[in-house]
Amino acid sequence: MNTKRPLVIFIMGVSGVGKSTIGNLVSEKLSLPFFDGDDFHPGNSIKKMAEGQSLTDDDRYEWLINLNTLAKEQIQNNSCIIACSALKESYRDLLKKDIETQVKWILLSGSFDQIFNRMKQRKGHFMPASLLKSQFETLEEPLDALSIDIKNSPEEITNIIVDEIDNKSEFGLIGLGVMGKSLSRNLASNNFSLSIFNRHVPNTEENIAVDFKATFPELSDTMPYDDLRSFVTSLQKPRKILLMVNAGKPVDAVLENLIPLLSENDVVIDGGNSHYNDTQRRQEYLREHGLYFIGAGISGGKEGALKGPSIMPSGDKNAYDLVQLFLETIAAKNSNNKPCCAYIGKGGSGHFTKMVHNGIEYVEMQLLAEVYFILKRSSKDPNEIATILASWKGTANSYLLEITIEILRKKEGNTWLLDHILDTSGNKGTGNWTTIATAELGLPGTMIPSALFARYISSFKEERIKMSDAYDPKIKNLSVDNVELFEAYQLARIVNHHQGFKLLYEASKSYKWDLQLPEIANIWTNGCIIRSLLMEELKVILEETNMILISKKIIPQVKKLKPSLNTIISRCILNEIAIPCLSEAANFLNGYSEANSPANLIQAQRDYFGAHTYQRLEDLSEKFYHTIWKNPNND
Amino acid sequence: MNTKRPLVIFIMGVSGVGKSTIGNLVSEKLSLPFFDGDDFHPGNSIKKMAEGQSLTDDDRYEWLINLNTLAKEQIQNNSCIIACSALKESYRDLLKKDIETQVKWILLSGSFDQIFNRMKQRKGHFMPASLLKSQFETLEEPLDALSIDIKNSPEEITNIIVDEIDNKSEFGLIGLGVMGKSLSRNLASNNFSLSIFNRHVPNTEENIAVDFKATFPELSDTMPYDDLRSFVTSLQKPRKILLMVNAGKPVDAVLENLIPLLSENDVVIDGGNSHYNDTQRRQEYLREHGLYFIGAGISGGKEGALKGPSIMPSGDKNAYDLVQLFLETIAAKNSNNKPCCAYIGKGGSGHFTKMVHNGIEYVEMQLLAEVYFILKRSSKDPNEIATILASWKGTANSYLLEITIEILRKKEGNTWLLDHILDTSGNKGTGNWTTIATAELGLPGTMIPSALFARYISSFKEERIKMSDAYDPKIKNLSVDNVELFEAYQLARIVNHHQGFKLLYEASKSYKWDLQLPEIANIWTNGCIIRSLLMEELKVILEETNMILISKKIIPQVKKLKPSLNTIISRCILNEIAIPCLSEAANFLNGYSEANSPANLIQAQRDYFGAHTYQRLEDLSEKFYHTIWKNPNND
Repeated sequence: MNTKRPLVIFIMGVSGVGKSTIGNLVSEKLSLPFFDGDDFHPGNSIKKMAEGQSLTDDDRYEWLINLNTLAKEQIQNNSCIIACSALKESYRDLLKKDIETQVKWILLSGSFDQIFNRMKQRKGHFMPASLLKSQFETLEEPLDALSIDIKNSPEEITNIIVDEIDNKSEFGLIGLGVMGKSLSRNLASNNFSLSIFNRHVPNTEENIAVDFKATFPELSDTMPYDDLRSFVTSLQKPRKILLMVNAGKPVDAVLENLIPLLSENDVVIDGGNSHYNDTQRRQEYLREHGLYFIGAGISGGKEGALKGPSIMPSGDKNAYDLVQLFLETIAAKNSNNKPCCAYIGKGGSGHFTKMVHNGIEYVEMQLLAEVYFILKRSSKDPNEIATILASWKGTANSYLLEITIEILRKKEGNTWLLDHILDTSGNKGTGNWTTIATAELGLPGTMIPSALFARYISSFKEERIKMSDAYDPKIKNLSVDNVELFEAYQLARIVNHHQGFKLLYEASKSYKWDLQLPEIANIWTNGCIIRSLLMEELKVILEETNMILISKKIIPQVKKLKPSLNTIISRCILNEIAIPCLSEAANFLNGYSEANSPANLIQAQRDYFGAHTYQRLEDLSEKFYHTIWKNPNND
Repeated sequence: MNTKRPLVIFIMGVSGVGKSTIGNLVSEKLSLPFFDGDDFHPGNSIKKMAEGQSLTDDDRYEWLINLNTLAKEQIQNNSCIIACSALKESYRDLLKKDIETQVKWILLSGSFDQIFNRMKQRKGHFMPASLLKSQFETLEEPLDALSIDIKNSPEEITNIIVDEIDNKSEFGLIGLGVMGKSLSRNLASNNFSLSIFNRHVPNTEENIAVDFKATFPELSDTMPYDDLRSFVTSLQKPRKILLMVNAGKPVDAVLENLIPLLSENDVVIDGGNSHYNDTQRRQEYLREHGLYFIGAGISGGKEGALKGPSIMPSGDKNAYDLVQLFLETIAAKNSNNKPCCAYIGKGGSGHFTKMVHNGIEYVEMQLLAEVYFILKRSSKDPNEIATILASWKGTANSYLLEITIEILRKKEGNTWLLDHILDTSGNKGTGNWTTIATAELGLPGTMIPSALFARYISSFKEERIKMSDAYDPKIKNLSVDNVELFEAYQLARIVNHHQGFKLLYEASKSYKWDLQLPEIANIWTNGCIIRSLLMEELKVILEETNMILISKKIIPQVKKLKPSLNTIISRCILNEIAIPCLSEAANFLNGYSEANSPANLIQAQRDYFGAHTYQRLEDLSEKFYHTIWKNPNND
């Protein structure tokens, strides 16, 4: 058997389809025990069937529990084969209870006439042929079964099953970059049987999959490919394939090659940072081919992917059910040992959620950069800065804080490695997309754009040098209080998270995604880059409100922290230190808590020059007014 | 005649096409004098032609000047008709010199065989038929002529010409909203013959064009329509039609109706605030139908449209030549009396430029709103604020400053009208588009997003009230120095304009538009909403550099103004007054003049968690490095 863990192979289908025959043949071939489900009916049911009566679901309950108990006992030691009609989803839910990860469904299927004729020739079977029709009506075909047509001979059917169990992998992964490799090892370590594929590009990408398999012992049973057809053929049906290729055109290119090789109900999961609109488009496109497409944002970087990332999958819920086991098993676990992975919603909502995650991440990184810069300008060396940041871990720990401390302490010979790094930061698009999404949705999500633009400014290094030459900024020796700096940082983070979740909330309303903010916060408590103590707190707060800043738990914190934020900003501005994200936090808070903004003037201006009209404070009727503003004496 | 000003009707085409015949017939019908150009050749030329020699362009110069002089003399009194081959663009340029706005070209055209046979039967003509071929080779057909096939009889041709001159308008305008009405009156006041169209929508839009015509005496000769086919038929060919309908789907809807009614080389101008990508798409679409499409950003609001807006047209340069006269005539004039309208570039560059204009406008408005808010919080009433702003006019006047002063002074009974206006500001998309374009181009254009988001915050009035209730911000009595406030405001404006022109510059590079920044600044010196003394200054500065902030003229200003900006921001932040745009100006300046930014930390973080690699300060080879950052002792 290719799968490392014991499996219960359920052979299912309507009465008369040949489950026992096939079960016995497979049992022989695989040297595994076979059980005919019909032998486990309680006495009452047997009597009813003999009298030609249909069983009710209540009648069946005991029977299904019996079989589930049998299965659980068996897989303590080894795999087994059980024949059972298992016509309904609810029956199968009972059969696989507590052993979801160790069940394989084989559906034998044929036409009514074919089976009816076959039954007429059979003896010693409980069910009269007249009940066959109701069986057909009852059958809810599972998406996650290997479906085999009984036009094949019993021997052929047996060979198909044995080949599937013995030779084929449960899961496939395409694209062995940094993330793809880590996720492959994660899947293999979780005892999933795995096929991996990396394209062959002469001289640059050769034998990637084979070499990678050879490097890590946990991949000893993994099947490596650089031929796409062989890779696809190596997978159990319906196939589950995780794409880990670069977002954009590469995803479409791989899909074009894959689609002709796939069969109905196969599921492709895109684990890259694709744009949510692309994901939506691809879902529709694959559905036209009878296939499923799940867009799954995956966060955690290289290490998270290996040890457990946080995963944000979206698309058709039925398709998610087919891959849930794999994704939730490899995901990080929260503080209650529940997976940091859950179905996010329809369409591209998973990639949208991942995009917002990255936007929040941009800000968290920029805030740390601003803190670092302020402390650097206060004449602290990297180690001293690390010591200060380490003192914040008790109340404000986060993955990014931890790695920043490690980075600050990294030496290269006698120098700090950080001091050698070029100060022009890159970006891969998600901060940009979040900014655009915020602008399109009409939301004041100011901090993500601010962090994005800080990166953009950094990328204009030559112009910065020209400006520096022109203005020769005096580097004044700044003095800041560490507690004040911490409080400013922490408040800016709260505002950042408020804006991020608000963006999810408003997008969910606009696109009808029904996003569950507490669940998303939960997914972000571990595995991902923005995991933090604050996220643990927000998971609870978001159960009560989608507006973090008016949560009763947050208001006192904000009130306490605000004076420090104001002081730090004021001091930095007077010392000409750029702190765009800290500033935005204060400006957003100030503007957002201003019941009467100066936008009345903007409305008046728009009405003056463009006759755009305005509303009046004392008139709640939504009526629009226009004024002839011009003083004729001024002409 | 439909055109109010005298016209020179040039009847042109190759020798033998029938210019004199038609000229005489039209002369009779219209009771206008007719001149045969051939009668005005100098003696030398006549001799050469009699000898069967071709004339050189030098020979023709005197002749063309003679005809131009004749035309100029004639239209002192009345229109006239002149027959002249006028084969080349350069000949026609001489013929119409100084009377460009009063020329109408009629091109008589036929096949070589047709004309050759006709010439063989003629007597008393200077040119031997053998030179006809070279005439055909020389002919550069003008786009801006009414072209008539000589398969029509002379009487039919005459009727076509007389109908064109007597009954048809030179220019058409579709869409009689605020801007469309003002532009119609502007066109009519400039003595262009005009057809106007507004759709008929039962009960809501009925007889709009007819009623509008009846309201204003300058429209007495304007032809009003609510039937599109009649409107199109009423226009001289090639038709020039200005669309003034709402951006987006309405433009496409009108185009779908228009296209089947138009003929080759007709020009449609979109004067609305369309997205530049839509404009590009529509240009390609109309070219497939043999038509031209000009995207023309128009700024100036209702009053500017009436008295002279600034206009930013882009598209095919040939098409611009056809409509240049109309657009440049109705445009505002700069301080040297040159039009605030010029060809911007290819594709959607005109609408892009208009979009950036609007983005700059958003910031200028927001800065005034912040100034107003600061002064309001300093316990000044609107009239006192107006007085302070009025004192700034000498050094920093602008249209927006002027109207703000008028707005502040507007009373309603005993109260200030401004105090009654609801403080939630609207937007029509261009600020949003500018923000998106900035993000897409990877530019740190921070102030436009900041102004956009300030409007978005204002639109969440209910949430602002909730926040205000939660935080109960203390309204402290602020005290600011008026000179400092002015200096802060002025510096923020400089940064705003730097970012705006930088966006144009980078977009021009990316999209290969070859935008002329000084010309664009010139267009913006009058007519448009952002006209100002500063723009006059920038027009000169942009001749030297595309980076305003490193201009030698600007550096000393910035240095002088900067301390005031810092002081104002610091004071506002400590008093919890939202000043997002002023803050962004300082943060941008500080970040942009920082030769060594803290982005090295961001690069280290990205390399830590995502193996994104980084570059090193001491290695200019563009090599990328990766570090294993994790301290194994921390696991």
